[in-house]
Parts: sequence; C-alpha cells; structure tokens
Amino acid sequence: MATDSKQVLIPVERLQAFIAGTLQHVGLPEADALKVGGLMAQADLQGSDGHGVIRLPMYVKRIRAGGLNVRPNITVVHEKPAMAVLDGDNGMGHLVVSRAVELAIEKARTAGVAWVGVRSSNHAGPASLYARMPIEHDMIGLYFAVGNANHLPPWGGMEMLLSTNPIAVGVPTLDEPPVVLDMATTVAAYGKVKAKAKAGEMMPEGWMIDRKGQPLLDPKRADEGFLLPIGGHKGYGLALIVGLLAGTLQGAAMGRQVVDFNKDHVSKTNTGQAILVIDLKAFGDPAAFKSQVDTLVRDIRHSERLEGVKRIWLPGEQSHQRRLQYGAEGIPISAGVIADLAALSVELGLPPLV
Amino acid sequence: MATDSKQVLIPVERLQAFIAGTLQHVGLPEADALKVGGLMAQADLQGSDGHGVIRLPMYVKRIRAGGLNVRPNITVVHEKPAMAVLDGDNGMGHLVVSRAVELAIEKARTAGVAWVGVRSSNHAGPASLYARMPIEHDMIGLYFAVGNANHLPPWGGMEMLLSTNPIAVGVPTLDEPPVVLDMATTVAAYGKVKAKAKAGEMMPEGWMIDRKGQPLLDPKRADEGFLLPIGGHKGYGLALIVGLLAGTLQGAAMGRQVVDFNKDHVSKTNTGQAILVIDLKAFGDPAAFKSQVDTLVRDIRHSERLEGVKRIWLPGEQSHQRRLQYGAEGIPISAGVIADLAALSVELGLPPLV
Repeated sequence: MATDSKQVLIPVERLQAFIAGTLQHVGLPEADALKVGGLMAQADLQGSDGHGVIRLPMYVKRIRAGGLNVRPNITVVHEKPAMAVLDGDNGMGHLVVSRAVELAIEKARTAGVAWVGVRSSNHAGPASLYARMPIEHDMIGLYFAVGNANHLPPWGGMEMLLSTNPIAVGVPTLDEPPVVLDMATTVAAYGKVKAKAKAGEMMPEGWMIDRKGQPLLDPKRADEGFLLPIGGHKGYGLALIVGLLAGTLQGAAMGRQVVDFNKDHVSKTNTGQAILVIDLKAFGDPAAFKSQVDTLVRDIRHSERLEGVKRIWLPGEQSHQRRLQYGAEGIPISAGVIADLAALSVELGLPPLV
Repeated sequence: MATDSKQVLIPVERLQAFIAGTLQHVGLPEADALKVGGLMAQADLQGSDGHGVIRLPMYVKRIRAGGLNVRPNITVVHEKPAMAVLDGDNGMGHLVVSRAVELAIEKARTAGVAWVGVRSSNHAGPASLYARMPIEHDMIGLYFAVGNANHLPPWGGMEMLLSTNPIAVGVPTLDEPPVVLDMATTVAAYGKVKAKAKAGEMMPEGWMIDRKGQPLLDPKRADEGFLLPIGGHKGYGLALIVGLLAGTLQGAAMGRQVVDFNKDHVSKTNTGQAILVIDLKAFGDPAAFKSQVDTLVRDIRHSERLEGVKRIWLPGEQSHQRRLQYGAEGIPISAGVIADLAALSVELGLPPLV
C-alpha cells in the first residue's frame, strides 16, 4: 500500500464533492449526484481504483451524449415476496443498484432471503460496494453483475461473447473486519487493465492473450486480445452463469447484446445486476454466526504459512486497511487520472480537483 | 468419452438396484435405499465417477460403524417464507439434500426465490445432481456445499482449513441441453484425485502441491500435500465464502470443525449444504428466458475457435452427452471399482454387481 511520488493524496470528502459537483453540473439532481459521488469516492477509498473517479470523464461523456438518463424513473416491473426486478430507466448504475439493495434488505426482513435484480441499469462501480451494504443490517449480500464490455471469449474460443462478470459477497463479523470477496471471473478485471494503461505500466503474464494465444502484456494493446478466465473452463462457466443470473434473468443485455461502453457512448447499455440478501436473523442468533466467522478468520490468519509468505489475508482485509489508511491520509490518485480530471474541469468550466 | 478395456459396462438400472440392495441390507428403508441408489447411479451416468458407486464401500463402512443414521428424522429448525434450515439427523446426504431441494422448489413457487440449507447432513454426491432438480419446474438451482475433508489451505498457507467446497448451478433451456455448471473451487475435486488413484494414473501438474510448494503428481501420495484453488487467491476466497454459506450459516461444520470422512468413519460429520431456487415465472415468461439462453448457447457453440480447438463446449453439455451414451450402452465402471464392489458383496454375503 505504498504510495509513489506520481500520486496526489485527496481527502475522501473532497473527492466526493468534486464528483458530485461535476455530475450535478451535467444534469443530475443534487441528492443523486451526492449519492453517486459518495459511492465513487468509496471505490477509490478502498483501493478499487479501476472503478472510482477514473470513470468520471467517461460517465460525463455518456451523459452529454445522451447515453445516460440523469433523471430516471426507477420502477418495479416484477415482484413477489422474496424478489423483484427493477427497471432503472437508463439511470446511473450506482443509483439503480443502491435502490435494488435497499429493496432486497427490506424484503429479506420478512421473507428471510430476497433477490432483487435490475435491467436498464448502467455501470455501477466495484461489486463489493453493494455486497457490503447488507452487512450493517446483519445480513449477507451476494452481488452479480454483467460487465459493460465483452472481453472474454468462451473457453477455446476467440469471439468475446462474455464480460468479466463479477461476483461479490459480503459477510458480517463480530470484531474482525467483514469478509468481503469481490472477484472478476477473469484473472484480471478490465478496470485493472485500464488502470495499468493509465499508470503507464505493463501487465503481468496471465492477464490477457492475443488472437494467436500468445501472452499480451501492453495494456495499450488491450484491443488486440482478450482476458483469460480463472481456472480455465471453470472461470468461463462462472462468467456465463453470472451473466445469465445478472443479465438474462432480469431481461438485461448478455452475450452479443452487450454494448461496449468504452466505444459507444450513446446506445442504451441495458446493464443487468442482481443482489441476493440473506438475513442472519432468520437462521438463528446473528451474534453466534458472526462469532463463528471471527473464529474462522483468526484460525486462517494465524495458520501455518508457506516459506516466504509474510501474512495470510482474508478477502476484504486489504481493502479494509486501505479504507482506514486512505481515510486518515487521503486517497492516492495517479498523476494520469489527475490530468484527465483537470482537462474535464476545464472543459466544463468547473474548479479543478487540485 | 472412449471406454477402455479395463472397464465394464453396467446398465444404469442394474447399478441403481445393486446400490439400493446393498444399502437396504445395511439398514436403510427400501424407499430411501432406492432413492440414494438412483442418485448415486445418476452420478456415474453423467460421468461424475468420483462421486457415484465408487463411494459405496465407504458409505457402508460408515453405516456399519454407526457413523450414519439409516433412519433419520429430518426436521425443519428455522423457517421463513423464502428460507428454511433442515436438520438432517445425520442421515445420508442424498436424502437430506433432496428434501431441501423439494422444500425450496415449493417455497419458490410463492416467494419467487427460496434458500433451504441443511445441517447434520452427510456427503451427497456430485453438486450438479441437486442444482439440476429445479430445472424441470422452470426454476434455476444454485447449490453450495462444504466438502467432507479439508484439502485446501488458505492462499499462502499450509494448514488445510478449507475443503473443495463446490458450487453448482442449473439453468433451464428450451431445446438445448440445460446449462449446468458444477465446479469445485479447487483446480481438481478430491473425488478426481481418488478416481486417478483407483485407475492407477498420475495427476497432471497444477492439481496439488506438497508442503515445499512443489508439484505433487502421484495420487497415492495425496496425503502429503494439498489441492490448489482456481485463480490463486480468488479460488481460496470462493472456497471460504461457499463454506460460510453452506456450512456456518446453517450451523454446520466449517474450518477446523470439518471431520475427514476418509479417515474417521464414526464421528458425526455435521455436513452443511444449501440450495437457492429461483422461479423463472416470477421474472416474466419462462419460455422467453429459455429461448434467450438457447440463443446464447448457440452463439457460444458456433463462435470462432482458437487454432487447434475442435469444439466449444457449454457447461453441462459433456455430462449430457455421457448421460445419453451411457444410458444406451451402459455406464463404464473401472476394474478397480468393480473389484472393490465385489469384495464388499462378499463381505455382506450379497450377490455381486457383475
């Protein structure tokens, strides 16, 4: 978690205010702009730097091109005691998915478990933001999303019919940091490829291959190849299933229907996401469950390590430490991102971030 | 799917009857013995040969040692409109999990979505058996299980605190074979290691490492090393999450509580499994969804292939083909398994399988 000299440290509140001010300027109502700004700043705060403020110029471009609805009317299109499907009316994904999580939490209180999916949504930032939301209600969150551009072919194939389709899960604990898994079904998420390109760094072998099956290391050449799934055919299967659950089931885009939002700023993406919320109270005493998780966390952390391994991490533990560190010292934003944001502010006639 | 000369072809009905007869002999009621026999034969029929009849001698050993309850009283310990937890009373996992799936299907009809988990269960065979059950009801099944022996250390660690904790998902289709993913969160399931040992074959590199971090290839030395997770730290995270969802949430064993049923045939395993059932009818017209899945399946199957790749497979497609082939020709059972079953029949004074 060392920050290098090419980075600028920005307090989380300032980052949120900057994002909110920019989004309000291009048409979002103040409350919505603040909500999105808060979630995007939280992404950077936890180190999900491929999904935070780095995305602001693209969101603004899409909004100004008419590709995002700044005043969506989010509606319920299907509903049962333990499920709902929302139509996001092409609003920002952060707003649509937040609404879905709130509804799922409410439904889980009576049903024990609830699934709420969305269609006509958009990119919503890191999956873990949403999987974490139920935790403070003593609930588990499982989040599934269709990525906003296809970068993954089926196993053995070359046509990019699938996206990085992530899974995130948030599990409450008692005294330990919550267990939060957030994983793309590819070895690397595409946001990480973009962050490498922005930072001017090469990718490690294993992230991408080219059309000849050879390793692709230069993130600026990402267009010439595709991402690799975790565990070979298993990751391909997982990406497909997540896409069916988060996309097809909700009436959202999947496969060839997916719009590449890196290249097309106008077409409606019809992004699909879904959250499953499980209320611990339905399963017994939440404190007993959380105490069991704490024990497991400690058993794992203090277990015997392979030679050369300094520490065994739990999922979400490094993000948790970043949140504490960056909250105290400021969030490191790379010089490349700062330059892009400065250009955006000039373009919009707004005060710069720094 | 070639069968070699060391294998014997057994009709699925004969296999089921043999298993059922054996289980009835050691105390299971006839209906329960037939149900377990049917599910175990289905495992072999679809090529899940690490989870079918190969396990019968061990089940019998456990039953005769008093480690499995042949007449369990399966009860509901927690219930809400969209969830339940069952106590399996230490019965055979096949019976306990089948009951859970039936209840989840029933609940999903009214709630839209339902989660049913079990505790005090036991090994239940391949995960896909249960994830497939909701399909004929136009429902999606997601199944999570805690493996019955810990073979996976946390990432960077050496203590085997986790199992292969599988995920299986079954998705209905219209004319195509259903999409059925069944994956251990390790590169190889431990059942596959056992099958290699039984077949006298070596394992490929990447399945297991020893305590020095070196590749372990001899399945007979499996005790000296541990399995590797898919995608490194991601597979570790996934195995942990599946264990929390299938085990800890249900009040079942997880982490150090897991009993290694390969070595201990007496202690109650308190195995945990869970199924999530999603009713397509709650999300709109099931036929429209299934038609979308068919389109996606065909788009994937017919998409451009990497050089040297003969065919792109969908998850569950190879099992589907095996089910058809083995159903017509008989199920190939290896000579090693046939010998073990013959010894079992002699021991019990029962007629042999062949």
